[in-house]
Amino acid sequence: MRVKEVPDETVGRLLAYLRTLLCLQEEGVESVSSQRLGEICHFKPSMVRKDFSYFGEFGRPGVGYRVDGMIQQLRRILNLDKGLKAALVGVGNVGKALLLYPGFKDEGFEIVAAFDTDPDKVGQKINDVLVEHIDNLQKSIEEKAVRLGVLAVPVSEAPQVAERMAAAGLKAILSFAPCQLSMPKGVRVHCVDLAMEMARLVYHL
Amino acid sequence: MRVKEVPDETVGRLLAYLRTLLCLQEEGVESVSSQRLGEICHFKPSMVRKDFSYFGEFGRPGVGYRVDGMIQQLRRILNLDKGLKAALVGVGNVGKALLLYPGFKDEGFEIVAAFDTDPDKVGQKINDVLVEHIDNLQKSIEEKAVRLGVLAVPVSEAPQVAERMAAAGLKAILSFAPCQLSMPKGVRVHCVDLAMEMARLVYHL
Repeated sequence: MRVKEVPDETVGRLLAYLRTLLCLQEEGVESVSSQRLGEICHFKPSMVRKDFSYFGEFGRPGVGYRVDGMIQQLRRILNLDKGLKAALVGVGNVGKALLLYPGFKDEGFEIVAAFDTDPDKVGQKINDVLVEHIDNLQKSIEEKAVRLGVLAVPVSEAPQVAERMAAAGLKAILSFAPCQLSMPKGVRVHCVDLAMEMARLVYHL
Repeated sequence: MRVKEVPDETVGRLLAYLRTLLCLQEEGVESVSSQRLGEICHFKPSMVRKDFSYFGEFGRPGVGYRVDGMIQQLRRILNLDKGLKAALVGVGNVGKALLLYPGFKDEGFEIVAAFDTDPDKVGQKINDVLVEHIDNLQKSIEEKAVRLGVLAVPVSEAPQVAERMAAAGLKAILSFAPCQLSMPKGVRVHCVDLAMEMARLVYHL
């Protein structure tokens, strides 16, 4: 049950809370104040309280928010409680690392299909996922009811491959290719630009 | 010559402009209007003009900004024109992919040292970089004058390893471990949280 669309900026903050609460849970922490949560996430405590009250969550004075309960609540709001399947296109070094990345499963994501064009890769199994030829993309994602894609091909191929992924029916694409991808309406792209993440740090060196 | 510290938010926008201009350059585009740049980056054209004028860059009416010139200018402002060396700790799947990632070199970064504790990995060469034992960290980064680190160890080991990286003298760490790392003053951490990047997309599915 989602009441209303949460703006992108708020989604970003909710994800930061979720990650922080997961870390606190790992450390055995049972409850946390808005003050402490704000400190860790670098948001004002008043912002934390505002964000949480928006979803009907009110910390108890002197006790704060229950870590377990908030994690469950945030996962529900963020649509992370359903176990989402993803299709990877591009089984190079980055793609392979993503197929083997344990952190996805922890958050309910599973890469269930992988595609490449390289005959040396097609037919291989990585982490129990068979690498298929990209010509199978549409058929395979329809059969597996996948709507989420991960793009990990070289930047020179990315625009055409992204187009194919959208045409095959994927509705959201996480791209590791550092370039602009223009997608048809209704298809969302989010780019993880590793060099720019590094550059962000370098500015402060 | 840097006149003043640019706030984080602005740094983020400047990196977005830089990536966009690099893509346009790749496509052979020679000049771009603030209108177009704003469209691609999802910022208001007035914001683009404000950001650029802040650095003394004014587009010419009817012509816009010169792509090559702006790239050079942005690289200078963002300290990306000096060729930065980085040390990687953790040569697992993600670490290996980062060692082999061509996109870093394109932006002037070079991973010049790699560290692990696994005897099967220590002594290996990946992309011409020798994997050393982590006990060599301090000596090696001092010799190579490295101040930038990349952390790619499992989350359970990340806090201790990050501490070691800071103690060894690294001043900025790009972490792929999805957990909070508390660093001594003067050491900056930026976390790339792959599962949360995926989660950001999923909200809109």
